[in-house]
Amino acid sequence: MDLPAPTLAPIPADLAKLARELFAALREAHHDGVGITRETYGPGETAAMRRIEAVAKQAGLACAWDAVANLRITRDGADPALPAAACGSHLDSVPQGGNYDGAAGVIAGLLALLAAPAPRRTLHLFVLRGEESAWYGRPYLGSSALFGQFDPAWLDLPNSRDPALTLGAAMAREGAEVPAIAARTTLLDPAALSHFVELHIEQGPVMVARKVPVGLVSGIRGNHRHPSARAIGEAAHSGAVPRWLRRDAVLGAADFAMRLDATWRTLLERGEDLVMTFGIFSTDPREHAMTRVPGEVRFTLEWRSESQATLDAFGALVAAEAAEIARERRVTIALGPGVRTPPAMMDARLLAFARRLCQSARLPHEVVASGAGHDAAIFANAGVPTAMVFVRNEHGSHNPREAMAFDDFLHGAALLRDILLHGAEALT
Amino acid sequence: MDLPAPTLAPIPADLAKLARELFAALREAHHDGVGITRETYGPGETAAMRRIEAVAKQAGLACAWDAVANLRITRDGADPALPAAACGSHLDSVPQGGNYDGAAGVIAGLLALLAAPAPRRTLHLFVLRGEESAWYGRPYLGSSALFGQFDPAWLDLPNSRDPALTLGAAMAREGAEVPAIAARTTLLDPAALSHFVELHIEQGPVMVARKVPVGLVSGIRGNHRHPSARAIGEAAHSGAVPRWLRRDAVLGAADFAMRLDATWRTLLERGEDLVMTFGIFSTDPREHAMTRVPGEVRFTLEWRSESQATLDAFGALVAAEAAEIARERRVTIALGPGVRTPPAMMDARLLAFARRLCQSARLPHEVVASGAGHDAAIFANAGVPTAMVFVRNEHGSHNPREAMAFDDFLHGAALLRDILLHGAEALT
Repeated sequence: MDLPAPTLAPIPADLAKLARELFAALREAHHDGVGITRETYGPGETAAMRRIEAVAKQAGLACAWDAVANLRITRDGADPALPAAACGSHLDSVPQGGNYDGAAGVIAGLLALLAAPAPRRTLHLFVLRGEESAWYGRPYLGSSALFGQFDPAWLDLPNSRDPALTLGAAMAREGAEVPAIAARTTLLDPAALSHFVELHIEQGPVMVARKVPVGLVSGIRGNHRHPSARAIGEAAHSGAVPRWLRRDAVLGAADFAMRLDATWRTLLERGEDLVMTFGIFSTDPREHAMTRVPGEVRFTLEWRSESQATLDAFGALVAAEAAEIARERRVTIALGPGVRTPPAMMDARLLAFARRLCQSARLPHEVVASGAGHDAAIFANAGVPTAMVFVRNEHGSHNPREAMAFDDFLHGAALLRDILLHGAEALT
Repeated sequence: MDLPAPTLAPIPADLAKLARELFAALREAHHDGVGITRETYGPGETAAMRRIEAVAKQAGLACAWDAVANLRITRDGADPALPAAACGSHLDSVPQGGNYDGAAGVIAGLLALLAAPAPRRTLHLFVLRGEESAWYGRPYLGSSALFGQFDPAWLDLPNSRDPALTLGAAMAREGAEVPAIAARTTLLDPAALSHFVELHIEQGPVMVARKVPVGLVSGIRGNHRHPSARAIGEAAHSGAVPRWLRRDAVLGAADFAMRLDATWRTLLERGEDLVMTFGIFSTDPREHAMTRVPGEVRFTLEWRSESQATLDAFGALVAAEAAEIARERRVTIALGPGVRTPPAMMDARLLAFARRLCQSARLPHEVVASGAGHDAAIFANAGVPTAMVFVRNEHGSHNPREAMAFDDFLHGAALLRDILLHGAEALT
């Protein structure tokens, strides 16, 4: 009944072979000519889930589909009174995406369950539906439903490629019990889980740059967004109006961006987690001309942090700098409506446990914030102690060029396995 | 035979009345429902010229149409061996423009000739064709032709509102001798003129802001333009890529703009003449998104100065700052091809003469650079000592809201008259 000690022992060769075959089979089944396409609540997603289910059943694991058509694979523990340890990820992809975003976490979880023949604590692998927002505009559909957080309004969302198809219709087609979901039925009691852990490829370039195969996620960044901000000055003749009489919207917006950039740098130097992006930044195409002092710039502003306090503090600095621009340049920075998504902290004890594991096994690693969102954030914000393991990956995700070295995957899978099997001990 | 002394004596009531009637008649004849439209080499321009010609003829002035269909009105002087003093401006307008841009200078010139019954020196008023680039993409058509600077390639330029009509066809229709123009025949020897002076409404807001009715132009700004510049970084995920791995094109371009703005301010503090404009500044609409670190910004950059040395010095600083951006932010500033227009200095002696006139008459005035181009620049660069008088005007030009107080016009017209009649004395 005793589990092997958490030493990041290598994944056995037979399981590594199975993982390699599963990645290959998924790639072959869902390559669309350009990349991998497994639509949210589409036949490809379901087929991929059934393929995982078949392997699990053959190994004697219990499989169940819940009301939102998530697949839960279970290895029963010797002591059913104990809260279960859980892992999971997703199998849908963006259109023409890569083969690893999501699937790596599912396959790593399957290896973990197969590696634990007789655990004391029950183990679950959740194969979660609809993590990608590309198809219906909303991410984390399956994990949200677990905790009664699926907004019934989402059922009417149209498919981005086939607007006649609603999310509700696609869910029903793939086996979900839509009325139960619409009623916000809770499918999973957070207290039934000791902890949750998700493996995912890194979607940024940090680990490649740092030359480490695995990352330990400290938190999943939340964000504040202003999708329709404007810098409002006054249009004028570019030759005839001197500097002191100008209200140049480009210079006002550029000054604003540089002030925020300086503030960002200062916060990073203090050790805070923050990224900031002006994704869209444009003079008005209907009016702009080379010989016209621009009267308006439209821009988007987003900042992300794993700390709510940092998000709020930066927001206050954004407002202060906007007021300075108005005073100094007579250009009004109108941020417009804001949209907020809270961050999700990973469990500090699980993170410390994972760091000790990597240190004792001399596995190079890095503690990183996740800039993109993940199902793990839903578990964490539902109150489940949660950890995430990142695997080094080149070229980002959501494109066919995702590149995860298989050896890196095996390191990550061993880490996931040991956190799944032994993480609960760190929580007591 | 003696002229009245140059004292800025008021314009006599009968001439003021004539000016008021001419402005009203031009407005009535060429109002298009929104603004004033007198197309370059169009019937409206010709009709306005004929109206001026009729008044001149009735007053006994000689009128002649040259090969490019400019109208030259002449009051013969007692000593035909002396170089003639000249003034002039234009009567075409932009589509839906104002009534004063151009016409104010022509009417002021007419008043000056009418006020000088028996001058020693011959006086000319040039009513110049095609000053506005709005119709055929090229400005200063009539004045360029005077000095053999009309590029024959311009004859094929299409009318912006009626592309089937070429400039050459419009010119022929309105009476120009196109073959002579195509042969770059010189129509006027610069040495035949003692000096040239043009009155024009100010197209910027300086004189309204300074509360002075007239401006004395120190120079007409030249410019350097980069119509297709780009800041090239690298697109990336806005959440997953940290600051140190970004090559953010918006921040690179904003940093570039702020550095140039600081340099601009420094040069102004040193007393140099300079304006700088990023008229177009935009992320790529095909690619930009709120959650994407922008990989490219396209922008235009223009700087203007009445000093060629300042234009060149700023150009060197532009290149230096671009190199700094590449080094510090790994964002390439590619300025692309540049287009240069040389500045034109007004004659310092005429400027000093005009200042003394204003000072002795206690007429509030200001020395200003002209940011927009004018026919006067063609005369100055052809070697004719040249002066320009600006009249205060609200709301800029090239729009129906041009607003010149008639009293301000009369002050300007008196100044034009005295510079025309006595400016040559300042040059000896």
